[in-house]
Amino acid sequence: MIHSQTGAAGHETTTETQRLISSRKVEGTNVYNLEGEHVGSVDSFMVDKYSGRVSYAVMSFGGFLGIGERYHPLPWDTLDYDTALGGYVVNIPREQLEGGPSFARDEDPWVDPEYDRRVHGHYGLPLGV
Amino acid sequence: MIHSQTGAAGHETTTETQRLISSRKVEGTNVYNLEGEHVGSVDSFMVDKYSGRVSYAVMSFGGFLGIGERYHPLPWDTLDYDTALGGYVVNIPREQLEGGPSFARDEDPWVDPEYDRRVHGHYGLPLGV
Repeated sequence: MIHSQTGAAGHETTTETQRLISSRKVEGTNVYNLEGEHVGSVDSFMVDKYSGRVSYAVMSFGGFLGIGERYHPLPWDTLDYDTALGGYVVNIPREQLEGGPSFARDEDPWVDPEYDRRVHGHYGLPLGV
Repeated sequence: MIHSQTGAAGHETTTETQRLISSRKVEGTNVYNLEGEHVGSVDSFMVDKYSGRVSYAVMSFGGFLGIGERYHPLPWDTLDYDTALGGYVVNIPREQLEGGPSFARDEDPWVDPEYDRRVHGHYGLPLGV
């Protein structure tokens, strides 16, 4: 979750206070692509109840897709927090984001046990444990 | 984060779907003590931006303390998710919870770099990395 421009040094010099962010603040945080363009915002995120790890950021892309409220789960590891931008940076081309698995607000795609695998597959990631 | 009554076997038999919970659903989840008494609910939680781990659940205890909205950060590892209860179980005596570090809604205790250490210390836990 460290932006490549910040690197490991950013972590070492970061205080504990700066490391923590409230769940209510993550919700609504802007997301940018590598070109610095605003591509969406974090609507919510999925937590693994057992490991306590954040598994997915659920991104709202309605703004630029123009198809209303669609929610795109992104594996958390695809996002890097950029302290300068005050938001997340995702290293995924826009076309791949737009074509990624998505759902409407009243849908619960996670009932499909294969959904995890499908999302990770779309972004070329192995399904972590 | 596995309730002792569920144990490791509960993890092995849990599907990926059951493992994930939305941040919006964690907010508001009830918390019980080992006697099964309702002691509060999760108002929000703190995420480590770099590791992607949930560091604290911020509990709202206003109900039983009767002193309005007070927020008690609990190290995430003190909470176990109980699928039968559909909530979290905390193995901390009520007196210790009530006497724990807390703050009001308009306060941001995390600006104090020692706050992490103080909260962990109150609950007898080492400050993780």
